[in-house]
Amino acid sequence: MLAPHAFTSRAAKMAHGVIAYSTDTVVAVIDPDLAGRNVRDVLPYLRSDAPIVASFEDGLRYGPTALLVGIAPAGGRLPEDFRAAIRSALRARLEIVSGLHAMLNDDDEFAALARDHDTRIWDLRLPPAAPLFSGAAWDVKATIVLTVGSDAAVGKMTAALELVRAARERGVDAAFVPTGQIGIAIAGWGTAIDRVVADFAPGAAEQLVLEGDRRARDLLLLEGQGGINNPAFAPVTLALLYGGAPDALVLVHNPSRTVIEDYDVPILSYRVLIRTYEGLCATVKPAPVVAIALNTRDLSDDEARAHLERARAETGLPCDDVVRNGPHALYDAIAPALRKTTALHA
Amino acid sequence: MLAPHAFTSRAAKMAHGVIAYSTDTVVAVIDPDLAGRNVRDVLPYLRSDAPIVASFEDGLRYGPTALLVGIAPAGGRLPEDFRAAIRSALRARLEIVSGLHAMLNDDDEFAALARDHDTRIWDLRLPPAAPLFSGAAWDVKATIVLTVGSDAAVGKMTAALELVRAARERGVDAAFVPTGQIGIAIAGWGTAIDRVVADFAPGAAEQLVLEGDRRARDLLLLEGQGGINNPAFAPVTLALLYGGAPDALVLVHNPSRTVIEDYDVPILSYRVLIRTYEGLCATVKPAPVVAIALNTRDLSDDEARAHLERARAETGLPCDDVVRNGPHALYDAIAPALRKTTALHA
Repeated sequence: MLAPHAFTSRAAKMAHGVIAYSTDTVVAVIDPDLAGRNVRDVLPYLRSDAPIVASFEDGLRYGPTALLVGIAPAGGRLPEDFRAAIRSALRARLEIVSGLHAMLNDDDEFAALARDHDTRIWDLRLPPAAPLFSGAAWDVKATIVLTVGSDAAVGKMTAALELVRAARERGVDAAFVPTGQIGIAIAGWGTAIDRVVADFAPGAAEQLVLEGDRRARDLLLLEGQGGINNPAFAPVTLALLYGGAPDALVLVHNPSRTVIEDYDVPILSYRVLIRTYEGLCATVKPAPVVAIALNTRDLSDDEARAHLERARAETGLPCDDVVRNGPHALYDAIAPALRKTTALHA
Repeated sequence: MLAPHAFTSRAAKMAHGVIAYSTDTVVAVIDPDLAGRNVRDVLPYLRSDAPIVASFEDGLRYGPTALLVGIAPAGGRLPEDFRAAIRSALRARLEIVSGLHAMLNDDDEFAALARDHDTRIWDLRLPPAAPLFSGAAWDVKATIVLTVGSDAAVGKMTAALELVRAARERGVDAAFVPTGQIGIAIAGWGTAIDRVVADFAPGAAEQLVLEGDRRARDLLLLEGQGGINNPAFAPVTLALLYGGAPDALVLVHNPSRTVIEDYDVPILSYRVLIRTYEGLCATVKPAPVVAIALNTRDLSDDEARAHLERARAETGLPCDDVVRNGPHALYDAIAPALRKTTALHA
């Protein structure tokens, strides 16, 4: 996993997500700044003993089968140390997995190396051709739950993954439906909805839900994107809200966040968020907010408890941090509502 | 203008828009079913005496400089009679103008013909590379008015074009900002926002508004797209609502429409539409609905009057049909509100 000079930063969200949730094992992380330590030393909550190494060559002895580009370099251009590692990995016949906006398959040098060494580059964000939204998602039999957020990068994917885990441990046939590059890297399928041409984004979301319906009988946890008042990403949020045809919504928020990331726009209150998401759904297919998942990773135990209590008091909804406290309490609290809204066969 | 077997149908919306509003003159329309008549005979409201001819060859004697593909063929594939006309036009060194989703420049035969005959194919829908939304649109000096709709294809482009005409006749330096292929064909610039990758759609809308600000000092009429509860097109609607940073909204509705085109989803009431659009804007940059533009083309005079009165009574807003009654009354009714919301220098 390639994360030079940035493994502990927020730019390495891809690396952290895959270490925490992928069924594939991360055998080593490349970050020369932290070489010699291991993942648990620097990010204990990831619970991984994978070594951190200085270079791709140092990582080779741990027997990788793929090189994952674990961070998004600032500016979008691929720095020379990334290029060198990718070149070496292709020569070693490793698969390359990348969630960058720039498609590595479009790079002539990489494409030729992959061909010559009989391996492949998996551009996670490359979307399939999608049709227009058809309405077929309205007939999906499984209960569809969409995680919606107060903003991008607050924990919508994590909440969905944790709730799927809880559902499965309760005997429910549930699937996580990935809609972004990290979710796709974790689950091995999905579509990066933010890369789909705007006209076809709801259709692409619908196709994912139809595929999810083939993968799980009872419950689909559809990974949300962006936030409804994020001026850049809200169209993707809406594409999932309509195209994904949810029966219920779980609202995800990081209480440390007070403004929309990168913009001078305030985070909305719980009341306005719930009214806005439910109000939009009501115009196409009604879906209530059934729970709030708070991401309190940056807070102390006392602060977290206070925020959870405040969210419960303000909204009257079940509310928990599904990482700090595990997903079972929240899942059990919403399971009856899921059975009520549609036919959850659990 | 190429519109075989479909010139009077709704599929020829591109043809009708360009005849009604382009500063270029349409010298002939190709539709073998109507050959020998002229545009005014079959569609009086377009007020054009252009002849309708059976073939491209018949149209050549009217001295065209470009061939516009005026309809979108069902299924998206280009029928052979379209291909034959486009081939002949390229050989005659005409420019080809197309708003089809499929890019004619990607067709090897057409691309080679254009090159060999030193002419070009203008794919109206081909979007430029767009950046992420930056917030620069919030600093635009001109007043930005966005037309929003109860659905797609209700008259948002027409309302914007008519209000620009009224503003200019009142001495206001105003510009129409095109966001779809027909508007682009009419105005000669713009971006088809529905063809932009979802993540960059608000950024593309912002770039259009910044370009509009360079073209007109006082007032920008930004062409809206889709409708906020159209399950396929609402993400594009939202990209314009946030990325276009409007100061005010004009709500456009066709009262003959009761369900969203192609979907079993009801058209929202004026009250819900206004609350939804204003509510979304309020979360990023507030913009009130200042008027309603009704498209009563399918109705009798009496029916139109009744619908206008009902809309005024239900909303308390100025309301008119800017085609049937001209745009001046509605423009004059909203001009004070535009001056109030920002610095309209008129």
